[in-house]
Amino acid sequence: MSKVVTFGEIMLRLSTERHLRFSQAKMFAASYGGGEFNVAVSLANYGIPVEFVTRLPKNEIGACALKEMRKFNVQNQNVIYGGDRLGIYFLETGAGTRGSNVVYDRANSSMATIEKGSIDWKNVLKDATWFHWSGITPAISKSASDECMEAVKAAHQLGITISCDLNYRSKLWQYGKAPSEVMPQLLHYSNIILGDIDTAYFMLGKDKVEPNYQDLKSLPVLYDRLFKECPNLEIVATTLRYSVSASHQRIGGILYDEKKIFNADVKEVTPVVDRVGSGDAFMGGLVYGLVNDKNNKQRALDIAVAACCLKHTISGDYNLITLDEIEKLISGDFSGKVSR
Amino acid sequence: MSKVVTFGEIMLRLSTERHLRFSQAKMFAASYGGGEFNVAVSLANYGIPVEFVTRLPKNEIGACALKEMRKFNVQNQNVIYGGDRLGIYFLETGAGTRGSNVVYDRANSSMATIEKGSIDWKNVLKDATWFHWSGITPAISKSASDECMEAVKAAHQLGITISCDLNYRSKLWQYGKAPSEVMPQLLHYSNIILGDIDTAYFMLGKDKVEPNYQDLKSLPVLYDRLFKECPNLEIVATTLRYSVSASHQRIGGILYDEKKIFNADVKEVTPVVDRVGSGDAFMGGLVYGLVNDKNNKQRALDIAVAACCLKHTISGDYNLITLDEIEKLISGDFSGKVSR
Amino acid sequence: MSKVVTFGEIMLRLSTERHLRFSQAKMFAASYGGGEFNVAVSLANYGIPVEFVTRLPKNEIGACALKEMRKFNVQNQNVIYGGDRLGIYFLETGAGTRGSNVVYDRANSSMATIEKGSIDWKNVLKDATWFHWSGITPAISKSASDECMEAVKAAHQLGITISCDLNYRSKLWQYGKAPSEVMPQLLHYSNIILGDIDTAYFMLGKDKVEPNYQDLKSLPVLYDRLFKECPNLEIVATTLRYSVSASHQRIGGILYDEKKIFNADVKEVTPVVDRVGSGDAFMGGLVYGLVNDKNNKQRALDIAVAACCLKHTISGDYNLITLDEIEKLISGDFSGKVSR
Amino acid sequence: MSKVVTFGEIMLRLSTERHLRFSQAKMFAASYGGGEFNVAVSLANYGIPVEFVTRLPKNEIGACALKEMRKFNVQNQNVIYGGDRLGIYFLETGAGTRGSNVVYDRANSSMATIEKGSIDWKNVLKDATWFHWSGITPAISKSASDECMEAVKAAHQLGITISCDLNYRSKLWQYGKAPSEVMPQLLHYSNIILGDIDTAYFMLGKDKVEPNYQDLKSLPVLYDRLFKECPNLEIVATTLRYSVSASHQRIGGILYDEKKIFNADVKEVTPVVDRVGSGDAFMGGLVYGLVNDKNNKQRALDIAVAACCLKHTISGDYNLITLDEIEKLISGDFSGKVSR
Amino acid sequence: MSKVVTFGEIMLRLSTERHLRFSQAKMFAASYGGGEFNVAVSLANYGIPVEFVTRLPKNEIGACALKEMRKFNVQNQNVIYGGDRLGIYFLETGAGTRGSNVVYDRANSSMATIEKGSIDWKNVLKDATWFHWSGITPAISKSASDECMEAVKAAHQLGITISCDLNYRSKLWQYGKAPSEVMPQLLHYSNIILGDIDTAYFMLGKDKVEPNYQDLKSLPVLYDRLFKECPNLEIVATTLRYSVSASHQRIGGILYDEKKIFNADVKEVTPVVDRVGSGDAFMGGLVYGLVNDKNNKQRALDIAVAACCLKHTISGDYNLITLDEIEKLISGDFSGKVSR
Amino acid sequence: MSKVVTFGEIMLRLSTERHLRFSQAKMFAASYGGGEFNVAVSLANYGIPVEFVTRLPKNEIGACALKEMRKFNVQNQNVIYGGDRLGIYFLETGAGTRGSNVVYDRANSSMATIEKGSIDWKNVLKDATWFHWSGITPAISKSASDECMEAVKAAHQLGITISCDLNYRSKLWQYGKAPSEVMPQLLHYSNIILGDIDTAYFMLGKDKVEPNYQDLKSLPVLYDRLFKECPNLEIVATTLRYSVSASHQRIGGILYDEKKIFNADVKEVTPVVDRVGSGDAFMGGLVYGLVNDKNNKQRALDIAVAACCLKHTISGDYNLITLDEIEKLISGDFSGKVSR
Repeated sequence: MSKVVTFGEIMLRLSTERHLRFSQAKMFAASYGGGEFNVAVSLANYGIPVEFVTRLPKNEIGACALKEMRKFNVQNQNVIYGGDRLGIYFLETGAGTRGSNVVYDRANSSMATIEKGSIDWKNVLKDATWFHWSGITPAISKSASDECMEAVKAAHQLGITISCDLNYRSKLWQYGKAPSEVMPQLLHYSNIILGDIDTAYFMLGKDKVEPNYQDLKSLPVLYDRLFKECPNLEIVATTLRYSVSASHQRIGGILYDEKKIFNADVKEVTPVVDRVGSGDAFMGGLVYGLVNDKNNKQRALDIAVAACCLKHTISGDYNLITLDEIEKLISGDFSGKVSR
Repeated sequence: MSKVVTFGEIMLRLSTERHLRFSQAKMFAASYGGGEFNVAVSLANYGIPVEFVTRLPKNEIGACALKEMRKFNVQNQNVIYGGDRLGIYFLETGAGTRGSNVVYDRANSSMATIEKGSIDWKNVLKDATWFHWSGITPAISKSASDECMEAVKAAHQLGITISCDLNYRSKLWQYGKAPSEVMPQLLHYSNIILGDIDTAYFMLGKDKVEPNYQDLKSLPVLYDRLFKECPNLEIVATTLRYSVSASHQRIGGILYDEKKIFNADVKEVTPVVDRVGSGDAFMGGLVYGLVNDKNNKQRALDIAVAACCLKHTISGDYNLITLDEIEKLISGDFSGKVSR
Repeated sequence: MSKVVTFGEIMLRLSTERHLRFSQAKMFAASYGGGEFNVAVSLANYGIPVEFVTRLPKNEIGACALKEMRKFNVQNQNVIYGGDRLGIYFLETGAGTRGSNVVYDRANSSMATIEKGSIDWKNVLKDATWFHWSGITPAISKSASDECMEAVKAAHQLGITISCDLNYRSKLWQYGKAPSEVMPQLLHYSNIILGDIDTAYFMLGKDKVEPNYQDLKSLPVLYDRLFKECPNLEIVATTLRYSVSASHQRIGGILYDEKKIFNADVKEVTPVVDRVGSGDAFMGGLVYGLVNDKNNKQRALDIAVAACCLKHTISGDYNLITLDEIEKLISGDFSGKVSR
Repeated sequence: MSKVVTFGEIMLRLSTERHLRFSQAKMFAASYGGGEFNVAVSLANYGIPVEFVTRLPKNEIGACALKEMRKFNVQNQNVIYGGDRLGIYFLETGAGTRGSNVVYDRANSSMATIEKGSIDWKNVLKDATWFHWSGITPAISKSASDECMEAVKAAHQLGITISCDLNYRSKLWQYGKAPSEVMPQLLHYSNIILGDIDTAYFMLGKDKVEPNYQDLKSLPVLYDRLFKECPNLEIVATTLRYSVSASHQRIGGILYDEKKIFNADVKEVTPVVDRVGSGDAFMGGLVYGLVNDKNNKQRALDIAVAACCLKHTISGDYNLITLDEIEKLISGDFSGKVSR
Repeated sequence: MSKVVTFGEIMLRLSTERHLRFSQAKMFAASYGGGEFNVAVSLANYGIPVEFVTRLPKNEIGACALKEMRKFNVQNQNVIYGGDRLGIYFLETGAGTRGSNVVYDRANSSMATIEKGSIDWKNVLKDATWFHWSGITPAISKSASDECMEAVKAAHQLGITISCDLNYRSKLWQYGKAPSEVMPQLLHYSNIILGDIDTAYFMLGKDKVEPNYQDLKSLPVLYDRLFKECPNLEIVATTLRYSVSASHQRIGGILYDEKKIFNADVKEVTPVVDRVGSGDAFMGGLVYGLVNDKNNKQRALDIAVAACCLKHTISGDYNLITLDEIEKLISGDFSGKVSR
Repeated sequence: MSKVVTFGEIMLRLSTERHLRFSQAKMFAASYGGGEFNVAVSLANYGIPVEFVTRLPKNEIGACALKEMRKFNVQNQNVIYGGDRLGIYFLETGAGTRGSNVVYDRANSSMATIEKGSIDWKNVLKDATWFHWSGITPAISKSASDECMEAVKAAHQLGITISCDLNYRSKLWQYGKAPSEVMPQLLHYSNIILGDIDTAYFMLGKDKVEPNYQDLKSLPVLYDRLFKECPNLEIVATTLRYSVSASHQRIGGILYDEKKIFNADVKEVTPVVDRVGSGDAFMGGLVYGLVNDKNNKQRALDIAVAACCLKHTISGDYNLITLDEIEKLISGDFSGKVSR
């Protein structure tokens, strides 16, 4: 079976429990996650061989991150070691009208201080058929951005499918480059892009647009400009996310292949156990669907939306759900009955 | 006051907390429960003298189950000891679109390996006016089924009211008998049956039916066939359960006495703290209502539905609510105000 | 900046977690709170200098309460010491149709046994511009009621604004006085009153009224009678609280200044993490708004309602939210998006 | 088998975990206990029919205490209800050189406000062969002391063996009576006394003595004076407790029957999981031994010392150990091997 | 590097925390372990390629056990699936004079119901240089015993070193065979045996002996008889374990190679965090030492003893220590200083 | 009363509980601490006015650190804000032969990136009589070291007593300076030094010495050289710490004032609940003793040693003990009896 490789940062996640505010917490739940690793876990859960490439510090916290990769059956043979620390993010989980809050403490992490050229991408990707990256890696540091470019170029040369989740984080991009200075070259080689239309325009340095996702007919002309900017682009997808409150989301999705708009019905998601990683769950579902059958785009989109919905019921960054649970949701069964 | 006797299995329940998946759990909450014992706890809470009969292993885990009976004021003087283990069920509590998941590990339990004739039912039931069993006991093993038959026959001979919750569990019935080979004889002696109409038909080996519970007038003809099959039947009741999601249920109920359909309005139940045992709460409410006033069937049904709704707010198998809380719900007060 | 002084009782709060009933709890979460202290914490969070006056026992539990004042930046230089115990309240947090339950164990507390005249109010209030008390203090004992009268009189003499939250608790008022025997004199000096119209009438010994808060035009005539009874009254406000269930509240608010009715839209609050202290959050928001700009009554009301809504998402008695979060809600953003 | 009746107060125990100080605790472990109830639990564990008599408040906290009696198989049919609150004690568990700290909050409890004559002791004790009380009950209030006297007199008239644990608590005795004004009459009727010699002298109003427990020969003359003061006395026992640190105790025991000194070897107890209730465990072991064989005093003492040692390994007030574990210790096996 | 294969059962371990008794536990810590798997984890920690072979149920609990193998870098490619349940053991952790207590619930586990011949051992062992089994596998069922024999024979034919930990468990061996009927053939092929001399004699059906491990000179003659009975035997080792209490062990070790007695000094181990798995830690250290240098037997023994000591400080079955920590202990540094 | 000012870094401490290894932890206990802040908390506990000066990030984690200062009554009016992050240290608590392990993640913290001259020390110290710093601050960065020099100089000019805890941390000093390049100038102005003799020599760039603390007479000549190097030195003190294991320490202390050696007896400390911060507890005790009575050096040393011992029984960095507890220990009472 084809191997997928994802590249990015894995962080220590320190979250308060039971909706406590930071100032109330005497304990932090410790787990691990990061956009591209979360996608890898999704794929491993679905039975796809998948490898994660990153840079870890040579200390006990880095060793914990490595154990996490193993536990979830994500290959790690090309992880490199160096730098001083594993990035951290603190998460305060909101409820109702109070949103969750993320405090990043990831500057100067081992991944942020990776040196360009330290990974032999030709070798790493030699057995892979798919490479996945996201807009977070070029946002954390110049050298991480450069190394991401190395990876994307190598993947392109090897003829591997390249997917990107735009993942814009306003609190990052602090090292002196704007997205529009970096992202266009990276997206140039990408075949699949996941993201909002306005985010894509912003990252490509285009004029601001205000897409109306409920008017499906209005979307192709907007997506088409992305295809013009990104010559290797084959598919663009967008997660539709209507936020009623921190505890109630409405999730749908759109996929466009330059010919046709595919659409998945909006589903109610309430309560929200943990919203973080739900975009990665969408991405993981999309990659899984396309790896299995690149031509059945409706099904890939349906899997992505179902996976995204179900992720909201899981604590932590990872989408620990099964294909059976996804199928049940796609079939229209939202009843959540006890299985016994 | 009249004593109720219930007979069945009590298990160790090991559940994940805060909606964690099994693979995330480093701790299991340990509690105890089982359909017929849960009914006994309900009745004890309402002040009805009640006794539970089962078979426990002579080890520390069995001793914990015994302490649980005592704590909740359920008499246990006829519990017998033997066998190797207390049955276990693992529970992963779902949320939203992800349902809860039960993994049974109850094969070869002390109750499953009970030997026919090991309980002197005439003596056990001599002070009782009501005997309750459920479709779980004949589902776990041949000998448990046989012993249940002994109990039912003895109760019938003593002129005691017999109630049964059909409680069909597809993951059980693994010992070589189908429900339709066993349940008809047991139901033959029962006076009160709780269950879905289609489940009753299935267990009695009748043709499949698809009752429309919203068309009340269509139901008597379906229920009537049960009265034909079960010559001692006096009352059939059905819990109406519309599952919007794992976190949102809509609960109602129907009762039929061969003359009249009684109906309780559907109530919104959200959020769901714990769904397990809500059927037993309905049963407990029904028995309580009928023990207190066999002629006021509407009130018995109202109590059953209110008890079922309130159970969803309680962690664990038991319905730890008060009669006052049931009365408040029956009166139409769903406000859940702070009492202070 | 002007200093606010609040006076009342701070208690040890012992609450069950995860909706457990008292009989299921092996652990109680220990925190501290009380109506007037909760208002002080709100104000301190908003950056207002605030002091809390109370009487604490000279033991380790009293010392914990003192640390709590310090932690939340509430001044405590006039706390007096004596008596035997810190009052306690037990809280069982409900869900859905099951309401929360408070068991008070506050009789004979250090605050209840305060001796009249033990606080030099002229000195305490010399730098203050605002004094806040609530209907709980006169409800706990004769001497607490008397001391409250001393405070109110001193504040009045010093020309300080006096606010009162009526806070009627039916489980209190056990010492032989009815509210109507005590509250009229206290309210006589108060400038701001927060409470339901019917509660105000009841406490003032007036005939029962049944205000229809949805008919805004019908309210001035009812409020006007309060202005007649309370010669110093400038503003009356009422929290509108529609309780769909213990987990779902709908919150609005009304403010009247003898000239005009101000109204804040009703907002959906679901799920409810913790309802206790939400009235104090309303009061804290109101005082904050009026301290900042006594003339912008609509804004003070909007802050009060937003603060009240957000409090429902916080565990514990205190409203640990920021002015930014309040502004976001006032602006109409209920989306609860992740900030990252 | 003979029934034992114990009389006293059961309290809610709120303890910090893992040696936390009060000011560090966000949670209190909630359990229940009290000297005379702890003795009852010991006896129930050993298979002796035992009943506890007390007064409980009619609220949810009182209901929890009642469930605790049931769970541990302690009869409760003569518990009376009334008063406002269950007494509380806060416990901070020390370690090493830092001792544990108890903060009592038991004034005005239901037991402290019991009215003399509210229990029909003749009826309560009619099936009993043993009555146990302790020096705590006469220390909490005048009326509790009076009711204790009623009980002791009734027991004496019925010819029941009466045992007393002197249990001197310097933080109690706050109601205006000194021990020497109350205890002599109570001890007058007692047949078995457990306590230090100097405590006994103090409570009987005798001169201060400084017994040297290591010089066994010096003790009879000291004990003899107790026999003179207490005409019904048959046995005096003393727990020897050498406190190396809060985590390391050395435990022995002495028993005297006016003829002979019995002595049990001092045993090392380290680490100490929970010291509270270890004296009650001694008492429970002593009563058990004497109930089983009043003539084998050495064995009763050995059981008492072994039970006391083992209690130190158990969290909470109760001595949850088995007779097998006691036998193993008496036999000299301290190895604490894994049983598997 | 050479691969080690271990074969046996992995169980779900459910343990009480903080020395609670079973009857006090509302939560069980859930982890996984089993003698032969614990040895595998030790070796993986030391950097030795190692594989574990077992039979798992196809359910979520089995999936958790598989994730555990992955997390700790233990290969699992030859795990087979089938049967109904993962074996369970309940653990109550003792302290001081109260020993820990194990309740086995492992009958009818997937491993116990393994069918002889279901593993292709020639293929499994083709890359291995070492095979490890223990006396637990032949103790759980006839078919597990038979499959163990298959493995041992295959290993012998392939010329692989075979090690065995005798691991006598009196609560097992319930299927109708005595150790002396089964173990001799299995030990016949084994090259390394770990166990007490008297256990070895008992399992081989020899007369009872009472070795005096403190008289080293007396041991060769006793060990020699084992060499006679087991023609392939090269090394026998014995863990010396003096149990002062459940919280204080004294650990040493002896190794004999038919020529010379090697001895490691006894070390103090206090406090004991978790004793379970300490024998497996000894075994893991021994195998590691011998894999690295079969001729340096003193060092292998020193590693084994140090690993065993350090294991007592780790919660759970596994010996999660590093080679550096072992070296420090071997060097005589017991100071346990903070590394910072 | 005289005010003490301490200057340094406060960090977020993330520690595993119950001796878990990092790889086992799903939760980290979150607390706050740092050498110089810990000293401040000690002094505040003893009733000394004390202020802590540091630099905090303007985020929620920094806000938590500020709340901690308030809670423990440490003044904070001169805290400055800036930089990106609060330093972190991870702590794995050892037991027995396994030592605790600290992983620092404090590089680039707000304190490490403080700019020289950003604090107006003349103003900060204007009401102070004592200034305390430690060898950690000059070890974390060049600018922190420079700012420390500013503080020390200002304190010297103001004639304030200056104390220093040498606090050598081998994992720090990573910014390009050796201790001997920085510490001599800082120590030049210090009046009180706490530290090992060999550490002092090392930091001052002197030859290595191996003091024998058990030979008191041999020490003055070694200490005297420190007095030569540090012209303002008045007192040197050394904590004696014999580490039997991670769970058992033996603690004593020595103080020298160029005239006389003062000595405090070595005390047994077992078990160790938390070792971290015990040196700061010694320092806090020493400062307290000298602030109260600079001439009673024996008493200051006795307080320091007792405080250090007692700290080992407290979780977290702070020495949350009372003066009464210190007095009890000084008086020779190690019994750790229950106070009730």
